[in-house]
Amino acid sequence: MKNQILIYLFAVLLTSGICSAQSESKVIEDFIPSSTNQPGKEYPQVNSEGRVRVQISAPEAKKVQLDIGAVKYDLTKDENGVWTGESAPQDEGFHYYQLNIDGASVPDPNSLYFYGASRWGSGIEIPAKDQDFYALKIVPHGQVREHVYFSKTNNNMRRCFVYTPPEYEKNTNTRYPVLYLQHGGGEDETVWSNQGRAGLIMDNLIAEGKANPFIIVMDNGTWHMPEKARSASPDTARKDERPKTWPPQGWADNFMKTMLEDIIPMIDANYRTLADPDHKAMAGLSMGGMQTRIITLANPGIFAYVGMFSGGSISLEDVENAPGFKENVKLLFISYGSRELENGRTRFEGNPQANTKVLEEAGINTYFYISPLTAHEWQSWRRSLYQFAPLLFK
Amino acid sequence: MKNQILIYLFAVLLTSGICSAQSESKVIEDFIPSSTNQPGKEYPQVNSEGRVRVQISAPEAKKVQLDIGAVKYDLTKDENGVWTGESAPQDEGFHYYQLNIDGASVPDPNSLYFYGASRWGSGIEIPAKDQDFYALKIVPHGQVREHVYFSKTNNNMRRCFVYTPPEYEKNTNTRYPVLYLQHGGGEDETVWSNQGRAGLIMDNLIAEGKANPFIIVMDNGTWHMPEKARSASPDTARKDERPKTWPPQGWADNFMKTMLEDIIPMIDANYRTLADPDHKAMAGLSMGGMQTRIITLANPGIFAYVGMFSGGSISLEDVENAPGFKENVKLLFISYGSRELENGRTRFEGNPQANTKVLEEAGINTYFYISPLTAHEWQSWRRSLYQFAPLLFK
Repeated sequence: MKNQILIYLFAVLLTSGICSAQSESKVIEDFIPSSTNQPGKEYPQVNSEGRVRVQISAPEAKKVQLDIGAVKYDLTKDENGVWTGESAPQDEGFHYYQLNIDGASVPDPNSLYFYGASRWGSGIEIPAKDQDFYALKIVPHGQVREHVYFSKTNNNMRRCFVYTPPEYEKNTNTRYPVLYLQHGGGEDETVWSNQGRAGLIMDNLIAEGKANPFIIVMDNGTWHMPEKARSASPDTARKDERPKTWPPQGWADNFMKTMLEDIIPMIDANYRTLADPDHKAMAGLSMGGMQTRIITLANPGIFAYVGMFSGGSISLEDVENAPGFKENVKLLFISYGSRELENGRTRFEGNPQANTKVLEEAGINTYFYISPLTAHEWQSWRRSLYQFAPLLFK
Repeated sequence: MKNQILIYLFAVLLTSGICSAQSESKVIEDFIPSSTNQPGKEYPQVNSEGRVRVQISAPEAKKVQLDIGAVKYDLTKDENGVWTGESAPQDEGFHYYQLNIDGASVPDPNSLYFYGASRWGSGIEIPAKDQDFYALKIVPHGQVREHVYFSKTNNNMRRCFVYTPPEYEKNTNTRYPVLYLQHGGGEDETVWSNQGRAGLIMDNLIAEGKANPFIIVMDNGTWHMPEKARSASPDTARKDERPKTWPPQGWADNFMKTMLEDIIPMIDANYRTLADPDHKAMAGLSMGGMQTRIITLANPGIFAYVGMFSGGSISLEDVENAPGFKENVKLLFISYGSRELENGRTRFEGNPQANTKVLEEAGINTYFYISPLTAHEWQSWRRSLYQFAPLLFK
C-alpha cells in the first residue's frame, strides 16, 4: 500500500513536472532574425525548434494573427500596441506565410517577398541541417539573367530567367548543355532562382566538382491546364479520371508549343548551347513536373534527361504509347517529399516509386529520390535539384 | 440696383454651381487597374486625374487608410467588410505607397513590391504622357544579369545587376563602354532596373538609333555617408556646412574604394568592356548623384562622362580643387525635377543651373535638364537617364 501511494505520488509529481516543464519551456527562447528578413529588420525570427515569431505594431487592432502552414496563430499585444507571437515548429526549409490584421490578409512588412500561391507575399527560411548546399559561399558564381523575348506562339513579349555557369564568360568558345526547369502551379519564372536557390545550388555543386556546368532556363509555364492533362499522371489522377487518348486534346495550344517553337529556339540562338537531344534536359516541380511528363512523352527525341519533382511519375503504359521515349531517354528522375507519401502512395493513390521500378526493370535508367521529412514544399525541390543536377550530361 | 442684385444672384448661382460640380465630379470614374498590380489583381486602380484607388477586405477593422505622397486618405467600408477609397491626383510616374490598417503600416497585398524608403513595399505607376520611352515594346531587348561577386574591400559577397545591350550576345567580338549607375538613399541595386526601367529605356533608345549600345552596372552604394561628404555639394549643403578640405576625411573607406578596387576591375574582367576613361561614365540619383560627384572629382582620370540626377551640382571651386577634371571630363550632366526647384534653387539654397552655367563658361561641356512637373521621384530620374544616355560615348 505504501508503495502504491508512493508510486501514485511519484506519478503525480512526474506528470505535474512534465506539464510544468511543457508550459514553461514550450517555446525555446533562442530566436534569431530570419535570413529572409528585409535588410535591418529584427523580425520575423526563428528558433531552434523551427518556430516562427513575428512582430508588428498595430495599436488600434483587435486581433492579429500569424498565418503559416494552413494554421492561424493569435498574437498578443503589449502596452505599446505591438503584437508578438509564434507558430508551432515548422519543417526545415522555406515556407510562405502572411499576417491577418482585423480580418485583412497582408504581407508581413518585415519579410522579403516571394511569388507563390498566385501572389507576391511573405516567405521565411527555417534553417535546415543540410542548408550548406544552397548557401551563398565564397565560390565562383554564375549569373542569373532576366531575358525578355517575343513569342510568336502567344504574340506577346515573355520573360524567362537564364542561369549561366561561372565559367560561361571565361570559356567563350565552349558550348553548354541546357536544363529547362519549370515552376509549380501558382508560381512563375522567378521562383526557382529566388526561393528555389537554383543558381546557388549549381554554383556550389560546380565548385565542388559534383556537377558539370550547364545552362538553366526558367520560364513561365502558367496556363489553363486541361482537366485531361492534369489527370493524366498515374500519381496525380484518381483511377477513374485517367484519359485513354494521348496527348489529350487541347494541350498542343498551351505551354508545349511555346516551349518547342519559342523558348528552345530562342535559347539556342542567344546562348552557346549544345542543341542536340543528348544535351537537353527538362524538369519541373508539381505542375511543372506534370508538364515535363507530358512534353517529354510527346517529344521523345528532344530531351534525353527528364526530372519530375513532386509532380507525378511515368507508367509503363505511358512509355509504350510514346515510341522512341525508351530509346532516347538517358535518365528519368522522380522525387517526392516524404510527407507527400503514405505507404509509398500519393494522395491521388498513385505509387511513384513502384511505377519507376517497373520502368527500371523495363530497361530505362531511373533514379528515385525521397526528401526526408519535407512536404509539397521548396525544401523537397531544392534537394531534388541537388540530387538531379549531378546526374545530368555525364 | 436691379443689376447689382442680378449680378449678386448670378454670382451665387455660379458659385454654388461650381461647388456642386466639384463635389459631384471631383472623382472621375474612369479607373483602370494599375500596370504595377500583381497578376490578375483588379486593384489598385488609377484614373485619368492620376488618383489612386485601393481596395482591401478587412471586416473587423475600425479604420483603414491609403498612405501615399505623405498624405493619409481614409477608406470607407461596405456591408461586406471591404474598404475602398482614393487619393488626390498624383504626379505622373512611379510612387511608393502603403496601407494603414488599425494603426499597422503594411504593403498592399495587390501591388507589386519595390525597394525604396529602406523597405520593400507597394508601388504604383501613374500613366504619364511620355510613358512610351520606358514601355515594354516589341524591339530587341538586352539582358539584366544578377551578378554575385566577392569584394576584397568589404571581405564579403556583394551583388550588382548588369544590363547588357541587345546585340551583346550576337557581336561577340565587340567591346562596349560602361555606365556605372547608382541608386538613391534608402534604395538598392534593384531599383534602376525595376522602378527605374533602365533596361527598357536603353532597349527603346537603341532600337530607335538614339543611343549607342553600352553596358550599365547597377551596384549597391548604401553606406554611412560622412556628414562632411553629404554637405559638400553646393546644392545639398547649407552654406555654413560646406567643408574646406577635399575629399573629406573618412570617405576613402566607403563606397569609392569598393567602386574603384572591386566593382570596376570585376566588370572589366567579366564583360567585354572598353576599359579606358573615354568609355567610362558614372551617374546616380540623389545620394547616388552625390557619390558620383565625390568619386569623379576625386578621380578625374577615370570617368569621362558624369551625371547627377537630383543629387547636387559641381561648382567652379570643386573643379579648381580637382586637377585633371576639366581636361578629362567630356560631359557633365546635371538634372532636377521641376518641383524640386524654387526660382532655380534647391531647398538647400544651391542653384544647380547657375553652378552648371559657370562651368560651361569655364570651358566644360555641360548639359542641364529639368523634368517638367515632377518632384524628387522616379519619373525625374527615368527622364534624366533618357536625356543622358544619348549623349554618352559619342
